[in-house]
Amino acid sequence: MTMPVWIKHAAQLATLASENEGPRTKADMSDLGIIENGSVWLEDGVIKAVGTTKELEQRFSARAKVAEMIDASGLLVTPGLVDPHTHVVYGGSREKEFEMRLEGTSYMEIMNAGGGIHATNRMTREATEEELIEQTTRRLNSFLSHGVTTVEGKSGYGMDLETELKQLRVMKKLQQTHPIDLVPTFMGAHAVPPEYKGREDKFVDLLIEEMLPVVAGEKLAEFNDVFCEKGVFTPEQSKRILEAGKHYGLIPKIHADEIEPYGGAELAAEIGAISAEHLLKASEEGVRAMAKSGTIACLLPATALFLREKAANGRFMIDEGVAVAISTDANPGSSPTTSMPLVMNLACILMRMTPAEALTAATYNAACAINRQECVGSLEVGKQADVVLWDVKNYQELQYLFGVNHMKSVWKNGVQVVRADG
Amino acid sequence: MTMPVWIKHAAQLATLASENEGPRTKADMSDLGIIENGSVWLEDGVIKAVGTTKELEQRFSARAKVAEMIDASGLLVTPGLVDPHTHVVYGGSREKEFEMRLEGTSYMEIMNAGGGIHATNRMTREATEEELIEQTTRRLNSFLSHGVTTVEGKSGYGMDLETELKQLRVMKKLQQTHPIDLVPTFMGAHAVPPEYKGREDKFVDLLIEEMLPVVAGEKLAEFNDVFCEKGVFTPEQSKRILEAGKHYGLIPKIHADEIEPYGGAELAAEIGAISAEHLLKASEEGVRAMAKSGTIACLLPATALFLREKAANGRFMIDEGVAVAISTDANPGSSPTTSMPLVMNLACILMRMTPAEALTAATYNAACAINRQECVGSLEVGKQADVVLWDVKNYQELQYLFGVNHMKSVWKNGVQVVRADG
Ligand SMILES: [Zn+2]
Ligand SMILES: [Zn+2]
Repeated sequence: MTMPVWIKHAAQLATLASENEGPRTKADMSDLGIIENGSVWLEDGVIKAVGTTKELEQRFSARAKVAEMIDASGLLVTPGLVDPHTHVVYGGSREKEFEMRLEGTSYMEIMNAGGGIHATNRMTREATEEELIEQTTRRLNSFLSHGVTTVEGKSGYGMDLETELKQLRVMKKLQQTHPIDLVPTFMGAHAVPPEYKGREDKFVDLLIEEMLPVVAGEKLAEFNDVFCEKGVFTPEQSKRILEAGKHYGLIPKIHADEIEPYGGAELAAEIGAISAEHLLKASEEGVRAMAKSGTIACLLPATALFLREKAANGRFMIDEGVAVAISTDANPGSSPTTSMPLVMNLACILMRMTPAEALTAATYNAACAINRQECVGSLEVGKQADVVLWDVKNYQELQYLFGVNHMKSVWKNGVQVVRADG
Repeated sequence: MTMPVWIKHAAQLATLASENEGPRTKADMSDLGIIENGSVWLEDGVIKAVGTTKELEQRFSARAKVAEMIDASGLLVTPGLVDPHTHVVYGGSREKEFEMRLEGTSYMEIMNAGGGIHATNRMTREATEEELIEQTTRRLNSFLSHGVTTVEGKSGYGMDLETELKQLRVMKKLQQTHPIDLVPTFMGAHAVPPEYKGREDKFVDLLIEEMLPVVAGEKLAEFNDVFCEKGVFTPEQSKRILEAGKHYGLIPKIHADEIEPYGGAELAAEIGAISAEHLLKASEEGVRAMAKSGTIACLLPATALFLREKAANGRFMIDEGVAVAISTDANPGSSPTTSMPLVMNLACILMRMTPAEALTAATYNAACAINRQECVGSLEVGKQADVVLWDVKNYQELQYLFGVNHMKSVWKNGVQVVRADG
């Protein structure tokens, strides 16, 4: 039994609480359920009460002395952030390649020298499970120190069954040992292995007939994701893979329309994917189809920044009624960052989302994108006691004072797991 | 007397030491003077020795036991970062305006409602010296926790003598009380006060005849800066102001060619400005003139990001032989950030500078831009003991793992002033 924790006097408590269920769209994305001079009571790992400090003082007057008091005066308090799209489990690091590219080496030269995604595939294949756990732990610690308490992670750096299973088992182990909640996605269809070049359908067969049954049999994943893009997997191949996954109870996700319009958004809507990712080049029809089907747009502005691409049109999507979530896309090739605070800032700066929309997209809608809205993403009674104190006086400052990690302390399941110095 | 400090076993010690004097250009910007398994000995506030751990072990074997040992295994160690261009002293905060703009309110509507720079002018005029000190202290604390140990700051939110002097006096006081070294710049010519609209020359007269003598007389500034831009101050007016400043011993700087090509880079070269700032729209001729005159380009990629402008062409400038420095431009309107680490990342991502060039631009060249290269900007014997330990294994990772503050600890004048938790 740990002591109850009473966080009180928050300048703003952004509860993200709502009467409505399901992913939030339009005006609902702007309603943060703010309580001024707010209080939240954490006990037995869950949220026991939320309200004004006055309300909680009345209710808990008899038990106040048994609780650890946390003075949140002058601070913003939010739910733990949720990152609904990462490739956090991988071997090695590619900072030298980053330097080479800036020194003028072309991507093709790097690929021919064994760099690029091949390097990550190789290093992930070669890494032992223990090595992957050690490297991923460091990344998860960084996520945690940026206020992130739930992280989705994908396989996909193996392109063979053994390595895919290794990535997923690493996530399963970390779920047991690391404070962060990990949500696993099978993404065998991340790239076409070189040996299947020109016979992509054979690889799809292999994936459906040999990989999916094992992944599902061992209950190693909840979602099934595919890179639907010209030169990778066609919409038809993507559909086959995702439909097969559904058969095993895996919920579909799609990396869609990142590089060119390819019908990915439309496909996501058609097959009822829970989310579609990237969407930099999604067609207007595709966006409207997603609004109609309730497919969440999972947008990745840090990736756009790192690749110097124009970010997805988050403003348009929200205006069209799409529920938007945001994510780091943490991966060694196109987004080597663990900062969800920066991603929220970029959602405002690059995608013209408002500060409130950015916070909803990084909490409640992000939870919806990984089917965790019942337990995380808002500060409501009965939910996991995942809470972040930020050293800003309101939610606007969290986005305005950009590029800075304002994290003051992070509480996971009611226990303080990180604290900023000073 | 404080104990000597011996930082040892750095995975990489980036000394930034060089035989050559003066701002670094071209290949010199890539030479970080890296020492592997590096050591640095801090004593009496200055650097007493720099070398491999083995070298220092031999040299200091007799005194090792009197020193505080800091194990920097696995860490990158660099000089304290230098931010050579900020507007850090200002009243109030404008996060609500940031939100309004994202909600669709136009800039003109905000200006008409008393927002924009007018709001900062008003809040800076209204703030007492104590209030400004308190607000600026919080910002400087954030700078420090991002590894920045020297910060240039400009006046310019007064547009009347009294407020300009108040800003500069605040810097003078903070120089005495805050660990960060503050370097003051007079920027009376930041904007044309509304009451001088259409009679800008009269304001220039006032600035030259009434403000400059007082600022110089009280020794409140070392530099004199002017916003040379269409609709603000012409090159001719800028030249008058800067030449007058020279007469009082104030070194010229110019906010140049931010919004359109206006001859600012050329003017900077012509009058021998120590640096020209922004330069998003600088002409190629202007850039070449700067290379010839040795004028430092002080580039501000976080501002470009925040305003969604194309960043200055840092790559071109370096290739043409210009010494480049980088800075946050910290200010409430166009760059409300205190993160020099992000600025380094953006120098790579948005301006195609290499990781090494970005670090040189944020240390040695930044020190040159504020005439502090004799005492800060590199780890060399006799210089101030301003040192940062970063939780990355090499300088490439510092830029590659972007959007994250990798600061592990900061030493100012030989004393640890910040430390990351854990
Ligand atoms: Zn992805
Ligand atoms: Zn400026």
